[in-house]
Amino acid sequence: MIIVMHPNSTAAEIGAVIAMVQKAGATPHPIYGTERTVVAVVGETSRVKPEDFSRMPGVEKVTTISAPFKLASRESHPHDTIFRVGDYRIGGPEIIIMAGPCSVESRSQLLETAHAVKEAGAHILRGGAFKPRSSPYSFQGLGLKGLEILAEAREIYNMPIVTEVMSPEAVPMVAEYADILQIGARNMQNFGLLHAVGRIQRPVLLKRGMMSSMEELLMSAEYILAGGNYRVMLCERGIRTFEKYTRNTFDLNAVPILKQLSHLPLIADPSHATGRWDAVIPMARAAIAAGADGLIVEVHPRPDEALSDGPQSLKPERFVELVKQVKRIAEAMDRFVPEPVPWAPQAADPAAPETHTLSSRRRVQPKV
Amino acid sequence: MIIVMHPNSTAAEIGAVIAMVQKAGATPHPIYGTERTVVAVVGETSRVKPEDFSRMPGVEKVTTISAPFKLASRESHPHDTIFRVGDYRIGGPEIIIMAGPCSVESRSQLLETAHAVKEAGAHILRGGAFKPRSSPYSFQGLGLKGLEILAEAREIYNMPIVTEVMSPEAVPMVAEYADILQIGARNMQNFGLLHAVGRIQRPVLLKRGMMSSMEELLMSAEYILAGGNYRVMLCERGIRTFEKYTRNTFDLNAVPILKQLSHLPLIADPSHATGRWDAVIPMARAAIAAGADGLIVEVHPRPDEALSDGPQSLKPERFVELVKQVKRIAEAMDRFVPEPVPWAPQAADPAAPETHTLSSRRRVQPKV
Amino acid sequence: MIIVMHPNSTAAEIGAVIAMVQKAGATPHPIYGTERTVVAVVGETSRVKPEDFSRMPGVEKVTTISAPFKLASRESHPHDTIFRVGDYRIGGPEIIIMAGPCSVESRSQLLETAHAVKEAGAHILRGGAFKPRSSPYSFQGLGLKGLEILAEAREIYNMPIVTEVMSPEAVPMVAEYADILQIGARNMQNFGLLHAVGRIQRPVLLKRGMMSSMEELLMSAEYILAGGNYRVMLCERGIRTFEKYTRNTFDLNAVPILKQLSHLPLIADPSHATGRWDAVIPMARAAIAAGADGLIVEVHPRPDEALSDGPQSLKPERFVELVKQVKRIAEAMDRFVPEPVPWAPQAADPAAPETHTLSSRRRVQPKV
Amino acid sequence: MIIVMHPNSTAAEIGAVIAMVQKAGATPHPIYGTERTVVAVVGETSRVKPEDFSRMPGVEKVTTISAPFKLASRESHPHDTIFRVGDYRIGGPEIIIMAGPCSVESRSQLLETAHAVKEAGAHILRGGAFKPRSSPYSFQGLGLKGLEILAEAREIYNMPIVTEVMSPEAVPMVAEYADILQIGARNMQNFGLLHAVGRIQRPVLLKRGMMSSMEELLMSAEYILAGGNYRVMLCERGIRTFEKYTRNTFDLNAVPILKQLSHLPLIADPSHATGRWDAVIPMARAAIAAGADGLIVEVHPRPDEALSDGPQSLKPERFVELVKQVKRIAEAMDRFVPEPVPWAPQAADPAAPETHTLSSRRRVQPKV
Repeated sequence: MIIVMHPNSTAAEIGAVIAMVQKAGATPHPIYGTERTVVAVVGETSRVKPEDFSRMPGVEKVTTISAPFKLASRESHPHDTIFRVGDYRIGGPEIIIMAGPCSVESRSQLLETAHAVKEAGAHILRGGAFKPRSSPYSFQGLGLKGLEILAEAREIYNMPIVTEVMSPEAVPMVAEYADILQIGARNMQNFGLLHAVGRIQRPVLLKRGMMSSMEELLMSAEYILAGGNYRVMLCERGIRTFEKYTRNTFDLNAVPILKQLSHLPLIADPSHATGRWDAVIPMARAAIAAGADGLIVEVHPRPDEALSDGPQSLKPERFVELVKQVKRIAEAMDRFVPEPVPWAPQAADPAAPETHTLSSRRRVQPKV
Repeated sequence: MIIVMHPNSTAAEIGAVIAMVQKAGATPHPIYGTERTVVAVVGETSRVKPEDFSRMPGVEKVTTISAPFKLASRESHPHDTIFRVGDYRIGGPEIIIMAGPCSVESRSQLLETAHAVKEAGAHILRGGAFKPRSSPYSFQGLGLKGLEILAEAREIYNMPIVTEVMSPEAVPMVAEYADILQIGARNMQNFGLLHAVGRIQRPVLLKRGMMSSMEELLMSAEYILAGGNYRVMLCERGIRTFEKYTRNTFDLNAVPILKQLSHLPLIADPSHATGRWDAVIPMARAAIAAGADGLIVEVHPRPDEALSDGPQSLKPERFVELVKQVKRIAEAMDRFVPEPVPWAPQAADPAAPETHTLSSRRRVQPKV
Repeated sequence: MIIVMHPNSTAAEIGAVIAMVQKAGATPHPIYGTERTVVAVVGETSRVKPEDFSRMPGVEKVTTISAPFKLASRESHPHDTIFRVGDYRIGGPEIIIMAGPCSVESRSQLLETAHAVKEAGAHILRGGAFKPRSSPYSFQGLGLKGLEILAEAREIYNMPIVTEVMSPEAVPMVAEYADILQIGARNMQNFGLLHAVGRIQRPVLLKRGMMSSMEELLMSAEYILAGGNYRVMLCERGIRTFEKYTRNTFDLNAVPILKQLSHLPLIADPSHATGRWDAVIPMARAAIAAGADGLIVEVHPRPDEALSDGPQSLKPERFVELVKQVKRIAEAMDRFVPEPVPWAPQAADPAAPETHTLSSRRRVQPKV
Repeated sequence: MIIVMHPNSTAAEIGAVIAMVQKAGATPHPIYGTERTVVAVVGETSRVKPEDFSRMPGVEKVTTISAPFKLASRESHPHDTIFRVGDYRIGGPEIIIMAGPCSVESRSQLLETAHAVKEAGAHILRGGAFKPRSSPYSFQGLGLKGLEILAEAREIYNMPIVTEVMSPEAVPMVAEYADILQIGARNMQNFGLLHAVGRIQRPVLLKRGMMSSMEELLMSAEYILAGGNYRVMLCERGIRTFEKYTRNTFDLNAVPILKQLSHLPLIADPSHATGRWDAVIPMARAAIAAGADGLIVEVHPRPDEALSDGPQSLKPERFVELVKQVKRIAEAMDRFVPEPVPWAPQAADPAAPETHTLSSRRRVQPKV
């Protein structure tokens, strides 16, 4: 940490800063310039906090040197974190594609979508059972029923599922059904929720807040890691800016920068980042070209009937095209989109009655 | 709602849109222009959702006309909402000042601050017992102990207290101690929390998210009002922009605009909105001049020792100056800063041992 | 300047940085911490540039300490800059009000507006003769004809005029007519134009760019001051953010911060900063309460017929109200709105034919 | 255009709006809903301006339907604009790479860089002779001398050159030397400059302002096209946001959106859009994957000695790598990076004395 003194700070003020550094157990190192004095802080700095100094008399500004995140940083963990979800490895050369509807709206809608995305080459099924909506009058999701439908789709199509959890007390329930717990953009700094998912052993997809900096995203990951859950994926899903032609501004700079700063896998969400289905395929290609480890994409069989996010959902046939194009970009990067694990097509009649028992709908423990 | 068709949309596409409007129970009103067709939607529009139309073939864009918030809007409730907190009225001609430290750090720190702000003219005591912090390694607040200290200060200084609640399950506990529940900026779209505070009868101070539009703020207020809790104060506390000289950008435009759009009282927070103690007094004046109904201000007896937000905390002597200047601005607006209700000074020795029993620390039911 | 080395930088890399500092004529001061080395740069630092170091091997980051503006800074010039425009002093206790239409549309429109704002208490007349418009198909201003009309209004109503200049080559012509040259927000970093107005002796109103930082505004002022023209007013007119209910976000934090950083007078523009006439009066009050030295306000006799900026223009009767309310706020700040200098009402029939000769329309040299 | 009336607007107010529409030559089409009346405007709408209506009594809001740009829009010109610069075609399947230093600093620096980028596969040489700098104390470019050096490099390496022009009066001089005139981000709304480059026949690279929306970029292109110069390239170079780890936020969403909205070629600038050399290669790949037609990249032989933009400049060996990777992405998109036209290596000794005569340094008329 570097404490910059005002040009007209007094010797007593400088002395007080030096004493304060010593009191905190660190070593002050004053440098007397012609215009100003600067006090560098070295040694054991864990108890030295910038805010302790920035208001002291005579102090002009305080600059920190080290990143505030530790466990999430590549300095502390130089190798890429790679972990399994179902039969897929995330964070290695494989490009993992998660796809499905914004919301689970009905059993038939989800099974139809799952079937389509599985056939097109998706690995993991997404779908919201609990939906954060800015209006209290909008569709809020099917809740537990939605989780059960997701679990049924997992069994039929042999696809791990990712779904959002919105509150700490819902974590055990959602974790019973989901293979990956998603923390939504609006909850990126819901610290109670971060604590809760840090205490369980289930991979987490942590979405960047729409006005959160990369540093804040890594600090939120730090909460989860500090709780003991090391399987965290970062997700860039667009930030809020003045631009109005798109729902958000896709900050793809975050891909190479976050990969440099952190060892965690990074998933890109071109659906939310653009808000327009007609920009999803190009931006999916761009995200992979920038170095993302995977994609999460909204697909709906009939986007114009979707209860949420219709304008940014791909039709199944467009999603087929997306996978095809992403495969070519992956190859140009010496990476690859793995073949999905097989499923038993005979089981897959969306029109068939719901025959699975409750226990079969619950998740099998994933291989860790 | 207005549905604008593409210049080259087909008659079939236009027909499908018209049919869809009818299906939703509303009346379509097509207008055939030379270049384009536009379908206006009138009548019973409650089940017509823009997202149902924006993805339909041939549709170029969909424009909504009515504001999406109802209970929070001035159209539905033309008169200012005014309610009591303790002996003070909020939302009328009175300017209400809430002050205190960012965090409750210790009993002596809080009592010392409470004493100072009460003497200076503050009405309501603020202080955080649960703190949302971007780093898991920062001070997270004293929790329940902090609530007990706040309740003690209320009894001694005869000041209602406002404190933050961070999760739905903590609402009953915090509501037992606090006169006003604060929803922090990071939780403005924590919908579970909004639901929870909507179901109790305790005034709520709802802070605007640093990334949230005025419309989203009003939608979050709508969640609380829709739950049956009508005593909501909006709080402008700065938004995030590119400007780096201040912690946030104080969006004071929000004051006249929100007062026009909504009947709810509006409190301004010049401490967070600037992040710099040396800008707090001018911006407190500006907020009142813009039409805010009150202020919430961070005060700390020794800002350079504060465990959080030191750089933006006023020393007690500066807070005295703030109240003095705000009074003059209020008068220039034909409003006034009411005299604080009296307290019994003999009870107020911060150095005295803690003698209050647990029950006395609990809150007395406020007059509703 | 502080050069922070990577934790794993080599002795050779540190040595190279030290040598580079010495080569630039300054004194390096290395501090060897347990984790990292930091090189402070002291002494004669004028030739040390951060960008020379930030790319050197082993360097992690470079932090500058001094503000990059000199002549504009309060450190170099501790007292407020106060100067005269016509019979008014700007930058002292007086609050100066500039008012008039966005564009000069016709002689009668301008004279009618000038009459109204003069009578209401405005000191300086604003009006655009050259208009920067985002569309090539929009009204671009009357040009020289507009300047002549402005000059006529000055003579009749005894009001100095402020008008925008858009290119370096137009500076001499505009300076011949205008008492204050306005640099518009879109031209804040038109460096050729800044150079040009720096070389003449005419006060300048420098508007902040809609996405420019306060530091960049002061750097642009520095261009003008460095050219030898010391009569510069800064103007806060709103910045661009994600908020959509207002045209811009009025960054009133800039008022106290710029007044701290700089000695230059500061004018606030509540018309552009809000884009809505119904927010102009509250925000005019707020700007003065924040500490602004004056206002620039758009007024139009019939805003719904205005060729530009109608939605943010006040009708004359609302402007009367603005002046009344601003006077009260000024008094609450121990400042005052001076009485306008008198004019000869008999000359002021807007319907009268144009009788002034060209020479009389040209400006009289102002008292400097 | 759609004019939405207030719920409580009067029949007279609605009548006035209808009359105003008729007065402007268009056809009003009132729709009387249960809550509100809406007036749609159809027919000949060229003289109907939203601002004429938004302030009329009883009007709540005005919504425009058509994009405000015409010549730049794909509606008016459905096919991609493709044009030649030197021997290269821009806007077709070819990916064109422009590279060179931020500033021309000396003859040897430019020739060395030109040599390196030509050998690596670049097509067009970039380099600034006139530099917009936020500080008046920074290096401002070599001016005319810089243009002469650029022209010499063109002759030696057989590379068209792109360089910035900063003021209308400099357009003829710069056009005499440059093959492509660059309008910098800070000048995107310097309308005098846009007019000036619209009146000449030389291709223009129009950079998006850091504060400008896509719509404003297209409106600025419209200025140039309306002047008669149809060879305009749009350039996405990053916008300003709250994120601090990068100099700008690369808005790659703009690539597919601008390509949809407009027929003009689009060039991406990963150097300015990131501000960090270590993010340039991934973001160059991403831009091409998103659909950009070319790149403009800063390269410097010794970035740590660069007089400007060192931190974002690639070393020649990294640029070689960039071209290699971009070629693979281009192929994955069924596009290609063309082979550069040959040059005569014997002429290329940067250490050789300056032997070209002035006339030879001037540009040969490009094939149009």
